[in-house]
Amino acid sequence: MKILVIGAGGMIGRKLTARLQKEGMGELILHDVVPFEGSTVVSDLSASGEAEKLVASRPGLIFHLAAVVSGEAETDFDKGYRVNLDGTRLVFEAIRKAGVGYKPRLVFTSSIAVFGAPFPEAIGDEFLSAPLTSYGTQKAIDELLLSDYSRRGFCDGIGLRLPTICVRPGKPNKAASGFFSGIIREPLAGQEALLPVPDSVRHWFASPRAAIGFLLHAARLGTGTLGHRRNLSMPGISATVAEQIEALRKVAGDKVARLIRREPDPAIQRIVEGWPRNFDARRALELGFRADRSFEEIIRIHIEDELQKSPQSRLSPA
Amino acid sequence: MKILVIGAGGMIGRKLTARLQKEGMGELILHDVVPFEGSTVVSDLSASGEAEKLVASRPGLIFHLAAVVSGEAETDFDKGYRVNLDGTRLVFEAIRKAGVGYKPRLVFTSSIAVFGAPFPEAIGDEFLSAPLTSYGTQKAIDELLLSDYSRRGFCDGIGLRLPTICVRPGKPNKAASGFFSGIIREPLAGQEALLPVPDSVRHWFASPRAAIGFLLHAARLGTGTLGHRRNLSMPGISATVAEQIEALRKVAGDKVARLIRREPDPAIQRIVEGWPRNFDARRALELGFRADRSFEEIIRIHIEDELQKSPQSRLSPA
Repeated sequence: MKILVIGAGGMIGRKLTARLQKEGMGELILHDVVPFEGSTVVSDLSASGEAEKLVASRPGLIFHLAAVVSGEAETDFDKGYRVNLDGTRLVFEAIRKAGVGYKPRLVFTSSIAVFGAPFPEAIGDEFLSAPLTSYGTQKAIDELLLSDYSRRGFCDGIGLRLPTICVRPGKPNKAASGFFSGIIREPLAGQEALLPVPDSVRHWFASPRAAIGFLLHAARLGTGTLGHRRNLSMPGISATVAEQIEALRKVAGDKVARLIRREPDPAIQRIVEGWPRNFDARRALELGFRADRSFEEIIRIHIEDELQKSPQSRLSPA
Repeated sequence: MKILVIGAGGMIGRKLTARLQKEGMGELILHDVVPFEGSTVVSDLSASGEAEKLVASRPGLIFHLAAVVSGEAETDFDKGYRVNLDGTRLVFEAIRKAGVGYKPRLVFTSSIAVFGAPFPEAIGDEFLSAPLTSYGTQKAIDELLLSDYSRRGFCDGIGLRLPTICVRPGKPNKAASGFFSGIIREPLAGQEALLPVPDSVRHWFASPRAAIGFLLHAARLGTGTLGHRRNLSMPGISATVAEQIEALRKVAGDKVARLIRREPDPAIQRIVEGWPRNFDARRALELGFRADRSFEEIIRIHIEDELQKSPQSRLSPA
């Protein structure tokens, strides 16, 4: 089977590709807008005709991970809509027009950003999408298109609302959510990390390894039981910053945890206040999607997958 | 103030126009895709440049009522998306690009078709949009765009999810929902009406007069209290077919009610099963939107507004 990965050059895309290769799941077509090691197609998805080229070989399984991130979609209104809405719609349209009998499994990464405050204690499977960002709006629209194109029989789609990925490997970035990973990743590397919000802030997490598990499970799932509601909030770990820090202390010791420095940032606090804190992801759990077991496990996965394999690891064990 | 009515040639558009003229609310620009008596602009909204022309005179109030109806959006996939999604998005884009300081009040008619079964006993303000038609999908997407364009400050939008309008005046049509009006309208005109579903079927109704009231209230509402959730399920009357018939009997007598003939249609029954039956429209009520008081009132409004003013009225009083 041919497998197309759109947006394969990102963090999730690379980890997914490695896993698909390891499991020998099929012939990979690896797409991104910029070239990366192993990429097979480089194109702008939102440019005329490019989506058609991508599905021309009729891949039976498509992972669509490509997106302009939240911050950029907010500062560049046109680019966000062009890539995150029009680009995705062009993929759906290319599939629809690829002809009779073509109905690929399409796994789409949506986001918990489709939800906006005020929230209930835990967001259930029937809670409305009322996003507070253009990024969340674009993802919510993509979800609606995915459902309708699936209902009409053009594709066999599943949308996964991923929790915030933590611990995100690599360098610190300027995303408002960056500190959730930073306060774990930097101390484990012997470096100071800034914490811009109070310890009481609660958020919803999944490790990169859990996220790849969601994608593969979605690729193999029998969709007969899904009905017409094809977008699912993924299970995760709900943890406060205090709980994150306590888990870090347990896993890596007091000295490491003390590398977190509190430096309140009202702008980031305001943004984070509008974000989901907790979910009741019942449907996804019933369908066999599996989250990490604890925030400690999320930290251990980071150590195993990112630090122990690397000779430059600066991990100081407790 | 200039007032633009997009889709002014339809049933709601004409009634709204008459009311705006009666109240002398401003200079009207009356648009539709086909010419009608009093129309000032005739154009295809989804054609390049047409939306820009409509907002070029910077109307301070815009009613956007234009849509391809549910049945046609289901049979003609391309046309539904072109008009109901692209056409509406082009209106939003034209407003955004009309320049600094332009931020019109935009009243958009959405639909209860944004919801799909399974439902709770009554659909509350936080229930998810999971439409089961392409029409409902397009309206749900328009709602998301309206919220985002309002949040970004490009327009001051309000989306109204109208109940099924009953009694719809005019000739019987082939819409799956047509019988809800037909079983009242035809008997009142001395004619037999077919009832394709069981008497136990429950649905959600508003009179044309109530719908016009919603639109005018939305035009005048202070939007400061709305926050970022700018799409509202309108209040209505939840009634079973049995309750509709009983109301008809009370208002117009046994002889009239006996003109309803039961002729089950499994295809229509299946469609209707996926439709909303009842709402808890708390937010709209708190914001001052007012429904009809009973299904009997809905029938009396039809008699007053459609039959008593017409010399061809065939109403036989009870």
